[in-house]
Order: sequence, then C-alpha cells, then structure tokens
Amino acid sequence: MKNIYLLGATGSIGMQVLDILKLYKSFNLKSISVGHNIKRAREIIREFEPEFVSVIKKEDCVTLQQEFPKICFGYGEEGLIEAATHSDEDGYLVNAVVGMVGLKPTIAAINKGRTILLANKETLVVGGEIITKLARENNVDIIPIDSEHSAIFQALQGNDYKEISRLIITASGGSFRDKSRSDLENVTLDDALKHPNWEMGAKITIDSSTMVNKGLEVIEAHFLFDVPYERIETILHYESIIHSLVEFNDYSTLAQMSYPDMRIPIQYALTYPKRIDFAYGKPLKLEEIKTLSFKKIDYDRFPLLKLAYEVGKLRGVMPTVYNASNEEAVNLFIKGKINYLDIEKIIFEAVNNANNIINPTIDDIIKVASNVREDIRKKYR
Amino acid sequence: MKNIYLLGATGSIGMQVLDILKLYKSFNLKSISVGHNIKRAREIIREFEPEFVSVIKKEDCVTLQQEFPKICFGYGEEGLIEAATHSDEDGYLVNAVVGMVGLKPTIAAINKGRTILLANKETLVVGGEIITKLARENNVDIIPIDSEHSAIFQALQGNDYKEISRLIITASGGSFRDKSRSDLENVTLDDALKHPNWEMGAKITIDSSTMVNKGLEVIEAHFLFDVPYERIETILHYESIIHSLVEFNDYSTLAQMSYPDMRIPIQYALTYPKRIDFAYGKPLKLEEIKTLSFKKIDYDRFPLLKLAYEVGKLRGVMPTVYNASNEEAVNLFIKGKINYLDIEKIIFEAVNNANNIINPTIDDIIKVASNVREDIRKKYR
Repeated sequence: MKNIYLLGATGSIGMQVLDILKLYKSFNLKSISVGHNIKRAREIIREFEPEFVSVIKKEDCVTLQQEFPKICFGYGEEGLIEAATHSDEDGYLVNAVVGMVGLKPTIAAINKGRTILLANKETLVVGGEIITKLARENNVDIIPIDSEHSAIFQALQGNDYKEISRLIITASGGSFRDKSRSDLENVTLDDALKHPNWEMGAKITIDSSTMVNKGLEVIEAHFLFDVPYERIETILHYESIIHSLVEFNDYSTLAQMSYPDMRIPIQYALTYPKRIDFAYGKPLKLEEIKTLSFKKIDYDRFPLLKLAYEVGKLRGVMPTVYNASNEEAVNLFIKGKINYLDIEKIIFEAVNNANNIINPTIDDIIKVASNVREDIRKKYR
Repeated sequence: MKNIYLLGATGSIGMQVLDILKLYKSFNLKSISVGHNIKRAREIIREFEPEFVSVIKKEDCVTLQQEFPKICFGYGEEGLIEAATHSDEDGYLVNAVVGMVGLKPTIAAINKGRTILLANKETLVVGGEIITKLARENNVDIIPIDSEHSAIFQALQGNDYKEISRLIITASGGSFRDKSRSDLENVTLDDALKHPNWEMGAKITIDSSTMVNKGLEVIEAHFLFDVPYERIETILHYESIIHSLVEFNDYSTLAQMSYPDMRIPIQYALTYPKRIDFAYGKPLKLEEIKTLSFKKIDYDRFPLLKLAYEVGKLRGVMPTVYNASNEEAVNLFIKGKINYLDIEKIIFEAVNNANNIINPTIDDIIKVASNVREDIRKKYR
C-alpha cells in the first residue's frame, strides 16, 4: 500500500492522477489540496475520503468543514504545506499545483523523507539548486511526471547518467507553430488555447505556444538529470509521439513514445520502478501514424526559448525572474489586459532589468518573484 | 581486460568487431576463426597476434602455420570449436560466423561458462530451445549483436521482461521493397545486392530482400527475450534509424535509434552494461533526417516472413528446415542456378514436405538441415 499526498487535486494533472488512483487498491490517498473548483473538490472528497484537505480560501475551509465534519481541513500556504506533510506514515508527495506555490510544500515533504512525484515545473525552475541538494541530503528520489522528463527518466533506466551525451526534448510547437512572427500580432486568447496534440490547463497551453513551457522544461531537465545546458537540445516534433530522447556517449539514442496521454507518465511515476497494465490506453500503431517528423527550432521565431537557456546559465534568481514575469504576463493575457506579443516583451524587460543573486535562499527567491510580479502588475493594470 | 574469442573474423561483422577492438587496450583477442579470405586473415594475425587461429581448409592451415610458427592453427569444424573454447581463461565468445556452423561452437563456449555475444542468427533459430536452456543452466548471458535485437536489449535495460507487451522489429524492406511481386520475376543478383541502408554480406542482403532475414530475427527474438510469437511484430521503417521497439504493459514504448552502423551494437555488446565513447560515429540529427516513416508489412508481398512465424510456432525442426532451405536456395541464386522467385518456391516446398521432430537433439537438427540441403541440391544442380 502506497500513501499518496496530492497537491493540486482539482487541476488537469491532479484529476488524471485520481484517474489512476481510483483503479488500484494499492494506493491510499491520505491528503489533497484543491483549487477554486469547490464542486469538484466535494466530489473528490466523497469518492476518496482523504484524511486532510487544504483549500485556497478560508471561507471554503469553513463551509467544507461543516459539510464533512470527519475530515480535517486547512487553507492557504500553511494548508498546502500541511497537505504535503500530513501524517507520520511515509509515502509519495504528488506535486501537481501550478506555479511557485509548489516550492515550499516540496521542501517540507523532502525534509520528511517523502518521495517526490513532480508535475510542478516551478519547484525545480526557481529552486533547482536548493531542492536537488536537499533531496540528495535526505536521500529522496524526485520522479518526474511531465511527459518529456518521464520519457528521459524511462530512457535512462539501466544506464549510467554519466554516459549521457545529449538530452533531446521534443516540442509540439504549440498552438501557433505554423504562424510567423507577424501572424502573432493579432492572435486571441481563444486561438492560443487550441493546442494541437495535448489537452492541458490554460496557462500551460499558452506557455506551450510561446515555448516558455519548453524553456522551463530545459531548466528542469538540467536539474533533474544533472546535464549541462550545452547538452540539452530541443526539437520540433509535430506528432507528440516521441516524448523525448537520450543520446548516450556511444551515439546510441533511446526514445520513449506513446499516444499523448499524461496518465501514462503519471502511472509510471506512481508504480516506478515497476510497470502495471494501463487501463485507459491502446497499443501504439506506428503503421497508422505513418510518419514522425522533426524540425530544428528557430530561436528567432521562439526567442523565449533561447532566453530560457540564457537565464538557466546565469543561475541564481534569473530563472525565477523569467518564470515570475511569465506567470504574470500570461495572467494579464488571460484577463485580456495585454496582447499576445506583450507576453514576450514583458518577460524580456523583466530579465533585462533584473539584478541577479547567485546563491539565493528560498526567501530571496520568493521575494524576487513577488517584486517582479508586482512591478508588472503596476505597469499593466 | 576482457578476453575475446572471435568466430568469423574475416566476415563483415567480424571486421567491424575488430574495428572496435583495435581502439581499446581493454580487449585481448585470444583466438579467431577466419573464412576463405586468407589475405585478410594474415593482416588480422599480424595486427592482433591471437594465440589460436582456425581456418576452413586444411591446406590453408598448413600454409599459415609455416608463416606464423608461434601461433597455433586449426581447421574445419574442430578448429572452430577449438577457437570458441581456446584457453582456460574466461571471456566473451563473439560468434559472427554465417550459417549453422555457428551452432556447435556456441554450445561448447556456453558449457565453458563464456558470455556469448551473438551475431550468428542460426544458433538460436535452429537451436533456440536447447541453447537457451543450456545458457540458463550454465548461468551464461547471451548478448545480441544484431542491430534489431541490440535495440530491444537496450530498451529492456532497467525493465522487467515480464512487463513486455510487444516487441516491434523494424525492417527496411531490403533491396526490393518498392517492387511488386510481378516486378520480382526478372530481378538479378546485382539488383538483390543493393541494400538501401546497410552495408552487409551477400547472403544477409539477399535475406533482407526476401524478408527471410526478418523472419529469422523474429524467431531469434522469441528465444532471446522469451516473448510468444503473437506479441512479436514487424513493421516497415524505410530510414533504418529506429532499430526496433519494445512496448510495455503500460503502453509506454521505448525505441533505440542511431545512424545505421553495426559497430554501435557491436561495441555495446562488448562494453555492456557500460557504454563508452564511440569513435566512428556522429550525433543523430533528427532535424536533418526530418521524417521517420512506418508502414504495415504486407504478408502477401513477403510470404516468407509469414512463413517464419508459422515454422516458429510449429517448433521442433521446422525453423531448421526453413533456415536450411533458405541457405541452400540463396546459395543457388548467388551461383546463378535459379531465379530470384525460386528462393521462395524452394523454401515453401521444403517446409511443406518436412516431417517435424518436436524435441530434436543437436544431431537431429544437423541431420535434418543436411538432408534438406542435399534434397534441394539434387533437384537444382
């Protein structure tokens, strides 16, 4: 029996984690955190009966506590950390919240010795050096859930990380992959939300179209697999069948493939190092897919991807500035306050104006992120 | 230091094994067997100074013994077995001879506890049940050298063989992949020897065009990885970049890729489970390859592949009949005594006329093969 502590249960990834958990008696969902969708939270609570539930707002906490008197509730940042560290039994923290709020609960769970199943990109993007060091010290495994990193992780099984020659992260290219830069001037939010291959949340779908998502994945891969940026490449792969590749020092390359379905890497992370039957899928029919195509990524077309490598190499709080300015810019775009190309402008401005702190504390990181977002909000409100 | 005992040193695979051995001080070539190319044998002897050399003909043995008085020589079947079992030190038998002659030396080396690096398809095709049982009893590893089986072997590292859902063996389709059956009536030996992607010996290039080669690989994969025929598939893959794939029970598929170069799987087998820098290659540029294409294999177009599955499932000596009739038919085709489509006719005749022996001894297998070949020779001389 594996105890599962799930942050972000009502989100896109969280719901798919629950899709897997509900099939097997071998998982025990001990605690969850939920988002603004309280209706969905109620359904999850009824179905899984977790011991502890954290919500965002205090009002929701009070309401739900009356509805479910046998369950413990919490709220806000404290509640999220409590959900991650709930119970003295061991288990897996599945971190599927979106954004920097995922950072502190991960640290708390690592300190408790829990295996981390990571879907929250920001944990490693902004806190990579601190988190990986802490995980080593606590002898804690970080298992990726993201399809690209899961692909790399799977390709690396039975191989020595020292024998990696290149990581090759595939990118579908997102909603606007066939558009030129001048085409982008008039695109709308609705256009941006139409991803060609994956069904995902709004923020990540927009990040996919700007390739900030791919940039964050590059930084995350750097920390997860301890590979320098010079040996992490990205490539356009339209069909999203190959989820990423590892080239070894003998020029042998291993690739992991499947139809695009996040529940495959989620299940792998949950059952690792074993695999179990996947109830939702079907065999990969390459004879029906017919072609897998690849194309070099044009950095002039996707300057935010190039910028991700640069902030990654600068280390310190620069990835935080990149990530926080993107979070705020995408937020403004979703609210209709800025145009699509302003996202790029805002991120470049933030990165260019930032003062780096090379070995930041977690508090430094949080403060920098908060300042960056505040500055952008002031300017564009 | 790893001791290497190499059978088939002057052949296409053997020469590529030597390409790898010459780069590294950590291998010690203790013995070789050579073919008819005595000039090349002399060069190898001078460069590697093996302790023991086996040739095919007694005359060559006598000549070479006078030229190289410090080296021991042998010849014929006994010489081949002596080359495989030479010395009381441990080491790796690299079996790169073509045809059924590879069978007995493999058995002798397994009995001596040597790790088997297998490029000789026939060893497992005709003797699969006996060989795999013997290897298990002697706790001996059989490591494949063939690119397809190496790909599967690499994809399986760190995974449980019980979690295999399908093996998917890729096929370039050979020299005549774009020809219809009626086109095949007038093809010549020269046409058959033009393989689109791989530089290989004559027999295997012809086997590739008839897909007998792929059929033999299916049977070999069945024994190497203990997977039933129903779960071994073949697929046309024109570019020969993906060398084969493994689908697991969670519908996650791992594929191994590289530019077509046999020295990559050869080196992997030699250094397994480690990988070392590959001196001859270059990084895989998917952005230059642009597309990987796949197509269902039409069994009406390639009936000999379908037949391989059938003889495999019949077990006993049926794979031996299939293989021996193919060896003889290809031999007759190379000598210009039959047309290309007669290869198929001869194999079907032999299989249809054969009486199966379900649990044959090695002697049964050798006798059946010899009878099949004799019958064909009589009829077509």
